Amino acid sequence: MLEEILRQVQKGDLSVAEAKQKLATYEDLGFAKVDHHRKKRQGFSEIVFGEGKSAEQIISIIKALREKNNNVLVTRISKAKAEHVIQECPEFIYHDIAQILLWKNEAIEVANDSKGYINIICAGTSDLKVAEEAAITAEALGCNVQRMYDVGVAGIHRLFDHYEEIQQATVSVVVAGMEGALPSVIGGLVSHPVIAVPTSVGYGANFHGLSALLTMLNSCASGISVVNIDNGFGGAYNAALIYQLAQKGAGSE
Amino acid sequence: MLEEILRQVQKGDLSVAEAKQKLATYEDLGFAKVDHHRKKRQGFSEIVFGEGKSAEQIISIIKALREKNNNVLVTRISKAKAEHVIQECPEFIYHDIAQILLWKNEAIEVANDSKGYINIICAGTSDLKVAEEAAITAEALGCNVQRMYDVGVAGIHRLFDHYEEIQQATVSVVVAGMEGALPSVIGGLVSHPVIAVPTSVGYGANFHGLSALLTMLNSCASGISVVNIDNGFGGAYNAALIYQLAQKGAGSE
Amino acid sequence: MLEEILRQVQKGDLSVAEAKQKLATYEDLGFAKVDHHRKKRQGFSEIVFGEGKSAEQIISIIKALREKNNNVLVTRISKAKAEHVIQECPEFIYHDIAQILLWKNEAIEVANDSKGYINIICAGTSDLKVAEEAAITAEALGCNVQRMYDVGVAGIHRLFDHYEEIQQATVSVVVAGMEGALPSVIGGLVSHPVIAVPTSVGYGANFHGLSALLTMLNSCASGISVVNIDNGFGGAYNAALIYQLAQKGAGSE
Amino acid sequence: MLEEILRQVQKGDLSVAEAKQKLATYEDLGFAKVDHHRKKRQGFSEIVFGEGKSAEQIISIIKALREKNNNVLVTRISKAKAEHVIQECPEFIYHDIAQILLWKNEAIEVANDSKGYINIICAGTSDLKVAEEAAITAEALGCNVQRMYDVGVAGIHRLFDHYEEIQQATVSVVVAGMEGALPSVIGGLVSHPVIAVPTSVGYGANFHGLSALLTMLNSCASGISVVNIDNGFGGAYNAALIYQLAQKGAGSE
Amino acid sequence: MLEEILRQVQKGDLSVAEAKQKLATYEDLGFAKVDHHRKKRQGFSEIVFGEGKSAEQIISIIKALREKNNNVLVTRISKAKAEHVIQECPEFIYHDIAQILLWKNEAIEVANDSKGYINIICAGTSDLKVAEEAAITAEALGCNVQRMYDVGVAGIHRLFDHYEEIQQATVSVVVAGMEGALPSVIGGLVSHPVIAVPTSVGYGANFHGLSALLTMLNSCASGISVVNIDNGFGGAYNAALIYQLAQKGAGSE
Amino acid sequence: MLEEILRQVQKGDLSVAEAKQKLATYEDLGFAKVDHHRKKRQGFSEIVFGEGKSAEQIISIIKALREKNNNVLVTRISKAKAEHVIQECPEFIYHDIAQILLWKNEAIEVANDSKGYINIICAGTSDLKVAEEAAITAEALGCNVQRMYDVGVAGIHRLFDHYEEIQQATVSVVVAGMEGALPSVIGGLVSHPVIAVPTSVGYGANFHGLSALLTMLNSCASGISVVNIDNGFGGAYNAALIYQLAQKGAGSE
Amino acid sequence: MLEEILRQVQKGDLSVAEAKQKLATYEDLGFAKVDHHRKKRQGFSEIVFGEGKSAEQIISIIKALREKNNNVLVTRISKAKAEHVIQECPEFIYHDIAQILLWKNEAIEVANDSKGYINIICAGTSDLKVAEEAAITAEALGCNVQRMYDVGVAGIHRLFDHYEEIQQATVSVVVAGMEGALPSVIGGLVSHPVIAVPTSVGYGANFHGLSALLTMLNSCASGISVVNIDNGFGGAYNAALIYQLAQKGAGSE
Amino acid sequence: MLEEILRQVQKGDLSVAEAKQKLATYEDLGFAKVDHHRKKRQGFSEIVFGEGKSAEQIISIIKALREKNNNVLVTRISKAKAEHVIQECPEFIYHDIAQILLWKNEAIEVANDSKGYINIICAGTSDLKVAEEAAITAEALGCNVQRMYDVGVAGIHRLFDHYEEIQQATVSVVVAGMEGALPSVIGGLVSHPVIAVPTSVGYGANFHGLSALLTMLNSCASGISVVNIDNGFGGAYNAALIYQLAQKGAGSE
Repeated sequence: MLEEILRQVQKGDLSVAEAKQKLATYEDLGFAKVDHHRKKRQGFSEIVFGEGKSAEQIISIIKALREKNNNVLVTRISKAKAEHVIQECPEFIYHDIAQILLWKNEAIEVANDSKGYINIICAGTSDLKVAEEAAITAEALGCNVQRMYDVGVAGIHRLFDHYEEIQQATVSVVVAGMEGALPSVIGGLVSHPVIAVPTSVGYGANFHGLSALLTMLNSCASGISVVNIDNGFGGAYNAALIYQLAQKGAGSE
Repeated sequence: MLEEILRQVQKGDLSVAEAKQKLATYEDLGFAKVDHHRKKRQGFSEIVFGEGKSAEQIISIIKALREKNNNVLVTRISKAKAEHVIQECPEFIYHDIAQILLWKNEAIEVANDSKGYINIICAGTSDLKVAEEAAITAEALGCNVQRMYDVGVAGIHRLFDHYEEIQQATVSVVVAGMEGALPSVIGGLVSHPVIAVPTSVGYGANFHGLSALLTMLNSCASGISVVNIDNGFGGAYNAALIYQLAQKGAGSE
Repeated sequence: MLEEILRQVQKGDLSVAEAKQKLATYEDLGFAKVDHHRKKRQGFSEIVFGEGKSAEQIISIIKALREKNNNVLVTRISKAKAEHVIQECPEFIYHDIAQILLWKNEAIEVANDSKGYINIICAGTSDLKVAEEAAITAEALGCNVQRMYDVGVAGIHRLFDHYEEIQQATVSVVVAGMEGALPSVIGGLVSHPVIAVPTSVGYGANFHGLSALLTMLNSCASGISVVNIDNGFGGAYNAALIYQLAQKGAGSE
Repeated sequence: MLEEILRQVQKGDLSVAEAKQKLATYEDLGFAKVDHHRKKRQGFSEIVFGEGKSAEQIISIIKALREKNNNVLVTRISKAKAEHVIQECPEFIYHDIAQILLWKNEAIEVANDSKGYINIICAGTSDLKVAEEAAITAEALGCNVQRMYDVGVAGIHRLFDHYEEIQQATVSVVVAGMEGALPSVIGGLVSHPVIAVPTSVGYGANFHGLSALLTMLNSCASGISVVNIDNGFGGAYNAALIYQLAQKGAGSE
Repeated sequence: MLEEILRQVQKGDLSVAEAKQKLATYEDLGFAKVDHHRKKRQGFSEIVFGEGKSAEQIISIIKALREKNNNVLVTRISKAKAEHVIQECPEFIYHDIAQILLWKNEAIEVANDSKGYINIICAGTSDLKVAEEAAITAEALGCNVQRMYDVGVAGIHRLFDHYEEIQQATVSVVVAGMEGALPSVIGGLVSHPVIAVPTSVGYGANFHGLSALLTMLNSCASGISVVNIDNGFGGAYNAALIYQLAQKGAGSE
Repeated sequence: MLEEILRQVQKGDLSVAEAKQKLATYEDLGFAKVDHHRKKRQGFSEIVFGEGKSAEQIISIIKALREKNNNVLVTRISKAKAEHVIQECPEFIYHDIAQILLWKNEAIEVANDSKGYINIICAGTSDLKVAEEAAITAEALGCNVQRMYDVGVAGIHRLFDHYEEIQQATVSVVVAGMEGALPSVIGGLVSHPVIAVPTSVGYGANFHGLSALLTMLNSCASGISVVNIDNGFGGAYNAALIYQLAQKGAGSE
Repeated sequence: MLEEILRQVQKGDLSVAEAKQKLATYEDLGFAKVDHHRKKRQGFSEIVFGEGKSAEQIISIIKALREKNNNVLVTRISKAKAEHVIQECPEFIYHDIAQILLWKNEAIEVANDSKGYINIICAGTSDLKVAEEAAITAEALGCNVQRMYDVGVAGIHRLFDHYEEIQQATVSVVVAGMEGALPSVIGGLVSHPVIAVPTSVGYGANFHGLSALLTMLNSCASGISVVNIDNGFGGAYNAALIYQLAQKGAGSE
Repeated sequence: MLEEILRQVQKGDLSVAEAKQKLATYEDLGFAKVDHHRKKRQGFSEIVFGEGKSAEQIISIIKALREKNNNVLVTRISKAKAEHVIQECPEFIYHDIAQILLWKNEAIEVANDSKGYINIICAGTSDLKVAEEAAITAEALGCNVQRMYDVGVAGIHRLFDHYEEIQQATVSVVVAGMEGALPSVIGGLVSHPVIAVPTSVGYGANFHGLSALLTMLNSCASGISVVNIDNGFGGAYNAALIYQLAQKGAGSE
């Protein structure tokens, strides 16, 4: 593309000023354009981190994003703040447990012919908040999602009811607090990538999630990588990237 | 399969003792068999963690593995120990920087029609050991690998020479010590999964890799997941799983 | 000065009691006098750390300081407390985001012929509070300030729009939370001193700013020094000292 | 007993000096006597912590202990030091992996009619040193011991081959390094007490055993308690106390 | 049991479908059944972790549990939440200090012929909350409990009043905050297992219980194992398992 | 410069290929060129981090650097390695305490008309290694340096002998281990920037320099910024940047 | 005393029952008696730790203590709780900053002929709470106290105004937050014991007082010992013990 | 003294130059003089910290110190280094366990009429090194010392044999590793100051002495203050200051 611009200058098809702007674009907006293309192609929603932003700030951001006709996803937004936003933008829907505010652009028709699914696994009710953040995010990013919320290491036998569903997923997101051992067990049962999400659930020597985080980083099972404590969004985003790769195949970009 | 066994018992085609053994197998060796199949299909090598094992132990393990006609990979093995092993198993080759001992079974003809590549990125000479562990591992697991070892955050402009190669990878493994900021920068440039590998390179307040680890876990770029400090093998293994998914597509298992 | 006093004693121009008092002053008030002189000469404001002080305490302190005809700066003061103070001292202005209460003495005419500027850089909206504390402080200390709040490591290309403004600053204050990688990138682009300010922005494994702090201390870019977590004031104060040096030149004191 | 002594004094059966000595004994040697009795009754060996003691110091201690005709157990003693000791005390046997030096007094005939067993479980070869310290210690303390060294969380199915042996133990000692998840899994399968022993096996973010320690302390399975990192001896000692209780029953002391 | 099922299939006593279901049960419900049996036999209550569950969730869980005619124990439930539950389930009794909600099924007649007792020891009033959680739990699990709440390391002589009661317990649960030294002292006085429960009581360098936790893990007294900070329930549960073993003896399962 | 290139293309003074190379240079080598210019102008040496590089690697790097006729500085190089290098490059001189290998290019005549000085302050003999690394580095970077090695907080009066030299420095580098209090004291005495360098000198609760690092980050004196533990080079580099600014003045770049 | 009791039994002057009670006392109440004696002799108040106790509990404790005619000191009691107590016990006086509730028994006439003083030193207003806890405590324990609250390391010259008062104290209690360097400076100026009290004052990398704590533990000045973070009471209690020793002299007990 | 100098100048007895030098001395050497006086009066030895100093450096320092006819104490000096020094200075004696090199100046006749003693208490053989450093130091500083090395928390009854010696000490230095509980127990038994010295003895979760350090800082017994890990010297120095105070009484300086 650089060569083309230069040739156009040489030929006089492009003034120096025009070329200068284009080359600046090559450096700067070029990146954004790629982003823009990628999002359209993949149906990925725009994502807003809601924590620490006022309802007013969120409203002005999501109005701008909505203009682009993309889905819009706001994570880590409290119920009170979300209700405030919905008064202004009633097309948004609030997911209570996940603390996510979501607008799905119905105008974007997504023919869902995607194969496989992301398996979101967690042990119990206390990790639900993070698991749901992952699940809603992955769905908003256009992936098939399966929730598997009734399994935990302390009753390992429950996993075996679901043995085939666990193995056949395209990629797994495993959410666990306290000792965080579940990803190791899942990692030993499957041959696909596992994204481990430690949670701050627990007390005392869990040190706000440090315990689960270290467990997952030191897993003796191969094929496990880890995101930040309570980062359900990050777990889902990584899984969605992998899921998309599995849809379109390598080298197709 | 369970049903089949039961029917054979019913018909008298299988004695109770035979059925009992088969059902035990279903529970136990069954897993291994799947593993075995997967490895053949994917050309994945068998992997031995060499640290803390004696040369004698390693020799007896790799002799057993070699019987199965798979590739064999020994990680974290010192030069001295490797030389000891090679005297007994001269078909093995030692990779000095990566501290890996490898046997590629020539009998397994791998028609390499795979597309895309894993991009192994690191900043400088001090992280080479971990980056090479990742690179050799990924190659042994049958992936196309590209090394990009001349880029670092403190001279961010060097990344732009390689802008297209960085973007077009199927998956990236980014190895960094000291402040460990490279994955954040790469993560902001690409739309594929990034596996971040913190290293213990540095001194003082790097606290043996803690600094780089925390940086990577807290990355504000989406699409980054993290493995243990100095775990080049783990980074490569995760990348290889993703790479394989991109080859065969989702739902094909 | 010591010699002078002694000679005056010798000559009888000074009684022993007077000399004793003067020499005590040499040890004690001497320091304060120098401080006093420096502040006048540099136009540095008096600074009050507002946290943990009652509105009443602050009022009595700033009334005393105002007597000296200096600018007066109160940092880390909540809106409620500030409003209480302003009722008593209506000439003060409150800076909401920075949580700073400031009085600029109009009587002090500052002919601003200073060259260069302090560049206050931060990534996003969540670090604004700390960045603004730095910016308002630096301005109150008599420096030219440029704010650059729209750049972040995860979209590194945005930095290149501002490449020249980044390089031409006299000194940079770089404010970053989460992984805190921005100072490393800035440090690699410039040849002037960079003061890095880690913030507690983030969650989970950021451990209240520890992550960003370690990143900055381990930066592989040269020319970066670090202040305490969320210490926007400290970052600005260091930068102002350097900025003043660059105005007046070395050895001129 | 106190009353008895006083009555003997009253009656003149005991001089004041004799009584004084007896009462001192009641306070002081009394404890030792109880200890002495307990050891005889339970066949518990005397135990010497070998680390940081010279071969000479160990020799003089074990000679004294041998006089009492008890078994003698020296833990954490290197091979070199042990060989030095054995030259002087050839009746001792050195256990290489466990780094234990042991003398079993053949003169003490122990009719082993004890029921049940302590199950020492660990995952792989790297934790063997700690597991063997536990196993040899428990045997020296007169317990039936079963070793189960071929099971690990990353291949959870291997546990199911041993399902009955795991459940039927009297008490389990579970040794694990890296992520240390094995005790949680075992704890979920059994209804007897589990003593968890974290090991320092691993690297990077295992922080010398901290990872496994925190995992075990935060286990979501009930019935697990934890000892110090690498403390195979402590794990076995706790298990032996429980095992003895199960032999003799409560309230029998 | 597996063999039996197969033989029934062979004989035609069992259809393939029935056998399949039974074998699935062997893997899955089988565990639960064992649990069920164990609970009946031992009189163990069902236990609900109340923290992070709403009153409504708790009500629906305990109603289900009550159906099974077991005792029901809810730990870590605030007074407000408990009162809400009691309105719906008035047969429950709330233990204020322990923050436990308990229903004892009068229909289950427990002939208490158990010998020995669990000794719950703590130093002062600040650790009472955790000690009572342990005591109420142990009682609900069917154990004899003795409370010993007036002893502390800083007045070591107070222990000696209770010397015999301390020694004659079947198992001790020792609860301590601040420096957490009490378990070491108790461990040196007794020859039965000691479960140490660190508490977060204290301030400053106690780091929310870390201090007491490390003290207990490093105890130089043998026979001490440790549970999580403030985990009075866990301490009692471990003690109850040991206590039950001492009742029924080893090998009787 | 971009505009110029485009105009030359337009005029035909530059072929497309030549322009493409130049523009690439603008992006990439351009930075290096700026660096190159800066170094010449400021007399800054090229700097090699010696740790973790072999003597052979160092020899080949410094030969390349020497070609550019710059000074060459190798930090953190052991005596043995340095002697190895000197055999090949005898014009280099080794500074034993600082562990620096230095070549000053005599061909570069530096007319030293610079004013002021960097004051390198440390307390005692144990911090000398780090202080000398700072001093030699600052000298190699072309700065006037004053060493003040005989002062320490525990004998605060010694500072007052040097009161004027301390105050009149352009910038101070204060090196301290153990409790690291010296920078706070110096910071309270001066009105110029202080770069604090914590060292790992000490034992026990100094936690390898963490103690001194935290002290310096929390200094209640304004005007102090901090570099990594034992990073004498970094301290000097920051000070040299400030020193250069004070020579040439702001806005002169 | 033991001998005496026995002789009285022998002579029949004491019944067995009486002797038994006395000997129990020797073991148990004996300690308390000594305490009681010591308190009377030294005029030491009884001390109640108020945190975590209800107003009702405090009222009942102090009523009991008051019976003994001793002074009574309640530390760490909030204003609200104290006012509640005072309604019931109006002879108590509340010290607001120190959060101490105190009753001085006027009936105990203390002829204050004690020499020397405890010097309570702190830097600024934010440490006042802890310093006052120390000062009120020391006074309540019968010591002469001098407050020196206007000195801080960042303005070290202020110390020299008070040079003689600093040196002539019997023992110093030095209270400091943030970097906590003041005890090192005081320790270098005096030849009497210094008790250092770190406070949690500060933010960010002070980690709730860890910074000041480590500084004080690593002080290069001799003669400094440290108590827990914010433990003004503990600092004063240690100082009071030393002060008493200096009054009565060694060997006089 | 200041007044005197000024009067001499006034009278002409002193030239301005002489006075200037004297006043400088007043500021600087004045402190040293006081130190010098104090040492003579108290018989305190000069102390050299041997770690990190070469034998040559130590030799030159102790030769200089010996000139002043004081005792000379070198701490933390290895046997090899000490032997090297003794060849040059044969009047020195090396204390092997304490790693102290000591010269007692026989010329200084110390009439030892001091009362009371410092009690150095430790639990077992592994803490001996630190305890002996304390004991030798305290003796070299002219104090009466009693060693009590046969007591430990895990066998608390052993303390009661020594109950009177423990109580009658002037000041106690209590050395403990592992869980470090001994100072709490001693602190509860005595009414004199206790200096607690944590040691790094132990393994695993003792984290190189952190465990014992935290225990001691959080002690629930009053009258305990703490020095750095393994700092036997510091413990003894603090105790010696207190011991001296008890000899001479307060206010006598």
